[in-house]
Amino acid sequence: MTGFQAAGAGGLGDVGLLSPVSASPLVEALTGDRAILAAILAVEAGWAAVLEHHDLAPAGSAAVVAHAADASRYDLADIARRAQGGGNPVIPLLADLRAQVKALDTAGAGVRAAKAVHTSLTSQDVLDTALMLVARNTVAALLADVKGTTAALARLAGQHADTLCVGRSLTQHSLPFTFGLRAAQWFSGLAAAARRLEALVLPVQFGGAAGTLAAGTVLTSQAGLTSGSATDPFALSDALAAQLGLAAAPAPWHTNRLAVTSLGDAVASVVDALGKIAADVLFLSRPEVAEVAEPRAPGRGVSSAMPQKQNPVLSVLVRSAALQAPGLAAQLHLAAATFNDERPDGAWHTEWPALRQLLALALGAAGHVRELAEGLQVFPDGMRRNLDLSGPLLLSEGVSAAVAPLLPAGGDGTPEAGLDGKQQLQAVVDKTLQAPPAEQAATYRRLLREAVPADRLSDARLEELLDPARYLGQAAEISRRILAAFPDFAPTSTEPDGNGDSRG
Amino acid sequence: MTGFQAAGAGGLGDVGLLSPVSASPLVEALTGDRAILAAILAVEAGWAAVLEHHDLAPAGSAAVVAHAADASRYDLADIARRAQGGGNPVIPLLADLRAQVKALDTAGAGVRAAKAVHTSLTSQDVLDTALMLVARNTVAALLADVKGTTAALARLAGQHADTLCVGRSLTQHSLPFTFGLRAAQWFSGLAAAARRLEALVLPVQFGGAAGTLAAGTVLTSQAGLTSGSATDPFALSDALAAQLGLAAAPAPWHTNRLAVTSLGDAVASVVDALGKIAADVLFLSRPEVAEVAEPRAPGRGVSSAMPQKQNPVLSVLVRSAALQAPGLAAQLHLAAATFNDERPDGAWHTEWPALRQLLALALGAAGHVRELAEGLQVFPDGMRRNLDLSGPLLLSEGVSAAVAPLLPAGGDGTPEAGLDGKQQLQAVVDKTLQAPPAEQAATYRRLLREAVPADRLSDARLEELLDPARYLGQAAEISRRILAAFPDFAPTSTEPDGNGDSRG
Amino acid sequence: MTGFQAAGAGGLGDVGLLSPVSASPLVEALTGDRAILAAILAVEAGWAAVLEHHDLAPAGSAAVVAHAADASRYDLADIARRAQGGGNPVIPLLADLRAQVKALDTAGAGVRAAKAVHTSLTSQDVLDTALMLVARNTVAALLADVKGTTAALARLAGQHADTLCVGRSLTQHSLPFTFGLRAAQWFSGLAAAARRLEALVLPVQFGGAAGTLAAGTVLTSQAGLTSGSATDPFALSDALAAQLGLAAAPAPWHTNRLAVTSLGDAVASVVDALGKIAADVLFLSRPEVAEVAEPRAPGRGVSSAMPQKQNPVLSVLVRSAALQAPGLAAQLHLAAATFNDERPDGAWHTEWPALRQLLALALGAAGHVRELAEGLQVFPDGMRRNLDLSGPLLLSEGVSAAVAPLLPAGGDGTPEAGLDGKQQLQAVVDKTLQAPPAEQAATYRRLLREAVPADRLSDARLEELLDPARYLGQAAEISRRILAAFPDFAPTSTEPDGNGDSRG
Amino acid sequence: MTGFQAAGAGGLGDVGLLSPVSASPLVEALTGDRAILAAILAVEAGWAAVLEHHDLAPAGSAAVVAHAADASRYDLADIARRAQGGGNPVIPLLADLRAQVKALDTAGAGVRAAKAVHTSLTSQDVLDTALMLVARNTVAALLADVKGTTAALARLAGQHADTLCVGRSLTQHSLPFTFGLRAAQWFSGLAAAARRLEALVLPVQFGGAAGTLAAGTVLTSQAGLTSGSATDPFALSDALAAQLGLAAAPAPWHTNRLAVTSLGDAVASVVDALGKIAADVLFLSRPEVAEVAEPRAPGRGVSSAMPQKQNPVLSVLVRSAALQAPGLAAQLHLAAATFNDERPDGAWHTEWPALRQLLALALGAAGHVRELAEGLQVFPDGMRRNLDLSGPLLLSEGVSAAVAPLLPAGGDGTPEAGLDGKQQLQAVVDKTLQAPPAEQAATYRRLLREAVPADRLSDARLEELLDPARYLGQAAEISRRILAAFPDFAPTSTEPDGNGDSRG
Repeated sequence: MTGFQAAGAGGLGDVGLLSPVSASPLVEALTGDRAILAAILAVEAGWAAVLEHHDLAPAGSAAVVAHAADASRYDLADIARRAQGGGNPVIPLLADLRAQVKALDTAGAGVRAAKAVHTSLTSQDVLDTALMLVARNTVAALLADVKGTTAALARLAGQHADTLCVGRSLTQHSLPFTFGLRAAQWFSGLAAAARRLEALVLPVQFGGAAGTLAAGTVLTSQAGLTSGSATDPFALSDALAAQLGLAAAPAPWHTNRLAVTSLGDAVASVVDALGKIAADVLFLSRPEVAEVAEPRAPGRGVSSAMPQKQNPVLSVLVRSAALQAPGLAAQLHLAAATFNDERPDGAWHTEWPALRQLLALALGAAGHVRELAEGLQVFPDGMRRNLDLSGPLLLSEGVSAAVAPLLPAGGDGTPEAGLDGKQQLQAVVDKTLQAPPAEQAATYRRLLREAVPADRLSDARLEELLDPARYLGQAAEISRRILAAFPDFAPTSTEPDGNGDSRG
Repeated sequence: MTGFQAAGAGGLGDVGLLSPVSASPLVEALTGDRAILAAILAVEAGWAAVLEHHDLAPAGSAAVVAHAADASRYDLADIARRAQGGGNPVIPLLADLRAQVKALDTAGAGVRAAKAVHTSLTSQDVLDTALMLVARNTVAALLADVKGTTAALARLAGQHADTLCVGRSLTQHSLPFTFGLRAAQWFSGLAAAARRLEALVLPVQFGGAAGTLAAGTVLTSQAGLTSGSATDPFALSDALAAQLGLAAAPAPWHTNRLAVTSLGDAVASVVDALGKIAADVLFLSRPEVAEVAEPRAPGRGVSSAMPQKQNPVLSVLVRSAALQAPGLAAQLHLAAATFNDERPDGAWHTEWPALRQLLALALGAAGHVRELAEGLQVFPDGMRRNLDLSGPLLLSEGVSAAVAPLLPAGGDGTPEAGLDGKQQLQAVVDKTLQAPPAEQAATYRRLLREAVPADRLSDARLEELLDPARYLGQAAEISRRILAAFPDFAPTSTEPDGNGDSRG
Repeated sequence: MTGFQAAGAGGLGDVGLLSPVSASPLVEALTGDRAILAAILAVEAGWAAVLEHHDLAPAGSAAVVAHAADASRYDLADIARRAQGGGNPVIPLLADLRAQVKALDTAGAGVRAAKAVHTSLTSQDVLDTALMLVARNTVAALLADVKGTTAALARLAGQHADTLCVGRSLTQHSLPFTFGLRAAQWFSGLAAAARRLEALVLPVQFGGAAGTLAAGTVLTSQAGLTSGSATDPFALSDALAAQLGLAAAPAPWHTNRLAVTSLGDAVASVVDALGKIAADVLFLSRPEVAEVAEPRAPGRGVSSAMPQKQNPVLSVLVRSAALQAPGLAAQLHLAAATFNDERPDGAWHTEWPALRQLLALALGAAGHVRELAEGLQVFPDGMRRNLDLSGPLLLSEGVSAAVAPLLPAGGDGTPEAGLDGKQQLQAVVDKTLQAPPAEQAATYRRLLREAVPADRLSDARLEELLDPARYLGQAAEISRRILAAFPDFAPTSTEPDGNGDSRG
Repeated sequence: MTGFQAAGAGGLGDVGLLSPVSASPLVEALTGDRAILAAILAVEAGWAAVLEHHDLAPAGSAAVVAHAADASRYDLADIARRAQGGGNPVIPLLADLRAQVKALDTAGAGVRAAKAVHTSLTSQDVLDTALMLVARNTVAALLADVKGTTAALARLAGQHADTLCVGRSLTQHSLPFTFGLRAAQWFSGLAAAARRLEALVLPVQFGGAAGTLAAGTVLTSQAGLTSGSATDPFALSDALAAQLGLAAAPAPWHTNRLAVTSLGDAVASVVDALGKIAADVLFLSRPEVAEVAEPRAPGRGVSSAMPQKQNPVLSVLVRSAALQAPGLAAQLHLAAATFNDERPDGAWHTEWPALRQLLALALGAAGHVRELAEGLQVFPDGMRRNLDLSGPLLLSEGVSAAVAPLLPAGGDGTPEAGLDGKQQLQAVVDKTLQAPPAEQAATYRRLLREAVPADRLSDARLEELLDPARYLGQAAEISRRILAAFPDFAPTSTEPDGNGDSRG
């Protein structure tokens, strides 16, 4: 037995080896531990600026703290481990930040910047606010990718408004469809979910140790006595929100986690929409189906053993994210639902990794889908081939509706011509199904021709009824309505694209 | 071994024996299988009315279908079992509905109501719309209970604005708090979540077999030829929405499930807020804590063995719901994320029980919390006793902030009076902690008195600093802001209640 | 707007309208509320028998209680609603049971059967034990269906040991495969999971109000004083286990829920295996693939609108179960992980519906898969057609391994003949891929023939290398090993079936 | 608004900043990305050794590969990002490994070690096996911590066999209990879960690209032709298992994930047991309860603002793990249930992060609980104080059972003395409850004395009945049985510990 042992020295943690969907520099830059640390420091620096601005910290403090609040000054792994002592990373970071501030604060008497660090805050104030900052930045990047995707999907919807394919339900063929409508529905799902992202309120948190703003009240009232300038902790909270570009909070929300669960729900909803697209592409790009293919890129989709393979790896990765996001959003709800006391005994701690992982998965997946949508190879011939597999029986719903009223009354003499007609047409379908598949088209056509007199149904009209392109209902209008409902997600999409059509 | 065997004849299914939180007549009436069936029938009846109104069904059809659409006419268990054949309950119900319509349709020539049943719909149109109807009714009932609860919580917030208690974080005492603020925060969590319920859009579904409105297009275009009256399937969809009191849908949403997940997320968020309240009450009503007690009712909270016990069974049941709701909401997201094709191969089916169970849990739990809030017994004496457990050290944060600037510079001659002051006060705390608990109050007071000259800190001011009622920060103002932010959830709450105070 | 209102009178609850996968008489008989009630009553009756046998209840008590313990005597819905009072259904049932016993206990002086009801038990003892009884019966039925399924899969594995198809990974073709091996792997997954079911320990629960057996100790010690016969509560617990056919428990397990989570995990694992089969069948029965089809049955797979459709509804329902089971098993773990105190404040209550629903889903799904496996239509021609889609490039892995050592050294004169050979063959693959798909087979063959001298690779050997039937590796042997590993799950499977072959 | 931007350069990823429960060097060494990479390399090196041993690779190959298989040679972050191309990390690593092998392979003609790298394997073989290696090592470490914990709990059970406390159900006091039995039940839950860990089968994976061992068959048959030594791919698989210290696999399990879900279930079950302990400690260490306290350590449990606080941070962190583990185990089941084809289109990818995170949480939590158990401060006085809160009414169950038979028949002349006795005693309880709490003990004693003649119940016997220490049932014997059932988890625990008792 080989002596496989644990890795010795480390310090690297998780760089994404087991989560390829989100192993990208962008995702790491926005959601990695370094980004979390930077956000925590940004909150402390923002707070120092607010305090100084309100004469609650010595002049010059904010600059010193801002200088010290450079994430690269800190030993991330060391802070992570020391976080076990107090159960959260703010506590050890504060010690290091204060040390940095003292070291930098060489301006001499009068400037005592360390006094401005964390004054009257509690660690939940800082961490909640920092995670909102991380969310704000990640959501912005996510929206950019989503809008790139929806623009591409809108183009596909326009280009393929007339590209026939087959609709499928419960895995079987249902009715004629268009690839343009499929793209429009992908667009619709994604744009609607993204609207929830846009509507998110990401608030600042400020409540102090018990959520009463007690320390903040002492701070502002002392200052009020001294300087005569009136302020209160709510004004500080609003100023911090403005400083950081977050929403103001009318009251501390230490124990009410709707801001967190709403964020999680919205992000999960975007991943749902991405997952739906991936699920379809995974099927449509199978060799037996061959209606679309993922864009090719050097080194992508390769197999370690099979040189001919081209795996739809973008969709595979997106699907892996889509299968994970629901559980992560649920983790946030579970935290909210068990958030006891004024700060809970574990539930809060479960929010952090779940929220971060959800953001990372969403951003990773959105990037992949954008690339997918922008480069999707579309094969109208394959779509037509699959549509034809089911033959004209696929149109029997429409044929029945159109032809039944034209049929003569049945032999039983009742006047229910319509009902009888449907029964007669069902018999036509049943007979057709008994023919070999290759002969069903001709059989169906012949049996229909025999069933209804030519003076009631002309040959031309019969051919119309058997043409799938004539049984698309409102496919084009539905696409148009969808795109019109989200104009900001489809800036140039409604124009037909004369030369970019990939139809072969 | 006793021959315990399976129950023989049945037909009853699940009446709630294992889900006491939601085993109520109201919940069953709104979410039970009978209610589902009634909703499906209401959709078909509404559709017949729309068709007749648009001259797409014979005059009189709608009345016949409405007559037939009485849920009590149908064998629910039989339909449930036959639903296995097609995988959904609409298919067998339609056969039975058509039979009922035919049997009732004795008006003679001209009225052929059976033609109006389900024409150009698909089963997903009906079931999606029916579940939205069920959701609409359940959400309305849920909101009623939530508003009853928030009104009660607002009263508690007002009554107990000055009722001192202790704030707790990570299970330990943090700072003085008020029970009024706790009630206000409960209110805040619940009202904010309920706002999401109110903002829900519950749309009608109409797309036909593949979501292209193909059959609906044939239907309306044929009629247009005949009658000259112009209509289109979108108009029918809007009319159905109006008929049923649902939101219109600009396009079919067969494959985009945001309406379902948003519903689930909003309902789960309400349950989260209920769960937070229950978590707190479960702790606060423990014998060792005894700050509140659930309202008593005959037969409630009894034990099968222990006559003296009074279990907080409302909160227990609510907590059981709170632990279940996140998983149910996640089930809806998982469905959305794997909703392949134009109708999926299993994901849709997972929505139904999850959505219904979530609605039932929420409604059951909301009723219990309403009863809890309206009858909560509050024991201010117990709150004060627990607050006093931690003694004056609980105020050390505020003492430190107030006293540190008053202290003389430390012995090392540096001018950092402030910092030194904090260090000196930490030493006071440390010394105090070495005293026996019963003596800590006196010790702390004495050591503080020794540390700071009386000309800088009067005895009166010191006593103020050691009075928890003076270290409540903005507790009252935060409560006021919270209630003001949700005026429709606290109609009469801001008035102080002169005589309803339950303080002992 | 139509006045769709909630259903009026009810009492029916959930008969499975929204859960077609498990809406069957068998599932209801084993897991419905009536079955739960019957199990609770069986525990009380079994306990009375144990007490009487140990002279701890009057002679004749057990017979009276057994008589009263007929589930049809009780109003299920009424008990469900009264269960809200105490939070569990045992409490109201006990009141009714005692009333029944008293009414039946007309034997006169000396027989006081009511004393034997529930004596020294607590409601958790009864409900935990009852749910183990329900699980025992359901697991037995589940195993029967699983074994029917595995027998059918073993037959398929034998019949199709030589039926060529294509293996797929990440949706793309990988290598030649056999349908027999696919069936064998389905078998393997299901049999291995079922072994965990067989190994389950389903214990009796007896601990009394706090899990100390205090009341039971008083009971047995009093009796010991009176009758001189020595017994103790552990003996009663073991006797109850024997009486009910459950496993004995060395100690009360009120707060340690491994028996429950292990049950849930094992059942979920069976559903996982069923879900994997369904996932494959759903794909393989698509029109574009057409390698298998579900068995036909009257009324199954029908669509409400499209007469030609044949939906794979068994697999759809099974997949719906597979997507739900993981969350239910997780619910049981969440309960176990938060099971505070000697009986918890909500977690226990969440076990009941989750466990029941999991059992019901598994039993429903297993029945469907059994029907599927026993009647699966297999289309070897379709399998071959799909295999041929990828052409001989599918064999390039094997060709490369076999041919590379035979190639002359590359032109660069290095001695790495082997490595060079692989590079040369990769170039052959790359050139082939540039040919039109229809010509790739001939191109690949020609380029290979050109690359290697005939004296090193005969034409016959080359054709062997391009024959997918010759690149199946150990497919047959792997199947044989799998079946041999579970002989009790494949009683007759290893025999080749001469005439039942469905190959065309 | 401050320009808080994303972190620039990074490469650090996740070092645990947001997951303090598992942010330890041990956890990282066993489950971090570096450990994953090392495990992958160990599999490749082990495979080279197997091949060389079977004359399927040139002599000396294994040593070169082993030399190259040093994880520190590789750029982890770079591999993680390149993993996006093929969707898994094995593919880019192989390129780097082969480059390393070539660079190291300077031995001259004849040694072609690069040929031994990955020959006839597929990436799933390598990654599945590598994760089993990681699991093996982590489970071993986990078991070590669990056994340290159970040993400590067994000691507590022995030391506190007679330490009275109160049992609690649904948050309320139920009956007298002992802290020893509580510790024994904690032990029981943890030891039973750990047994499942010990029973885990962690198998090697070897199936080749499609799970048919096709390439392996070519490899071994070619060698057989050359060397005359007979081997087959199964022998290679078994040899790899032996080489790595994993279990042999009778067949490839590419698509049957029971090994993975069983691992997840077992690990989650351990976390459940840890979570139960933490839930109890969190409550018992609250200031109002004060029955236990976490061990103190420098820097642990501190607050950023409140100097007097001592947070039970070990339990908080453990609880955070307990709330997360169920969802992670469910993720593994969801993967298993949707594992389509011969390798799936996303499900496999979801296993990796879930499995790793679950292992990390468990190991982190187990270490914290071990520290907790080994240093738990126990306060018997606090336990007694809380027990006395409920007064003698807590004993009414036992009093009723013991006294009822002694009571004279009721006034109505019926002979049901027993039943009447219970009713009379219930009246005593009801009257007692009307007295002020402080007087209930005396009231209950007096009323009982009045109710039963002294010749039937002596004063001494009455006092016995009112002594909680006499109503402990089988608490001691249950503890003994529990410890005896797991002798390997309680090596020295059954001995009374004369001097280590922390009782005050």
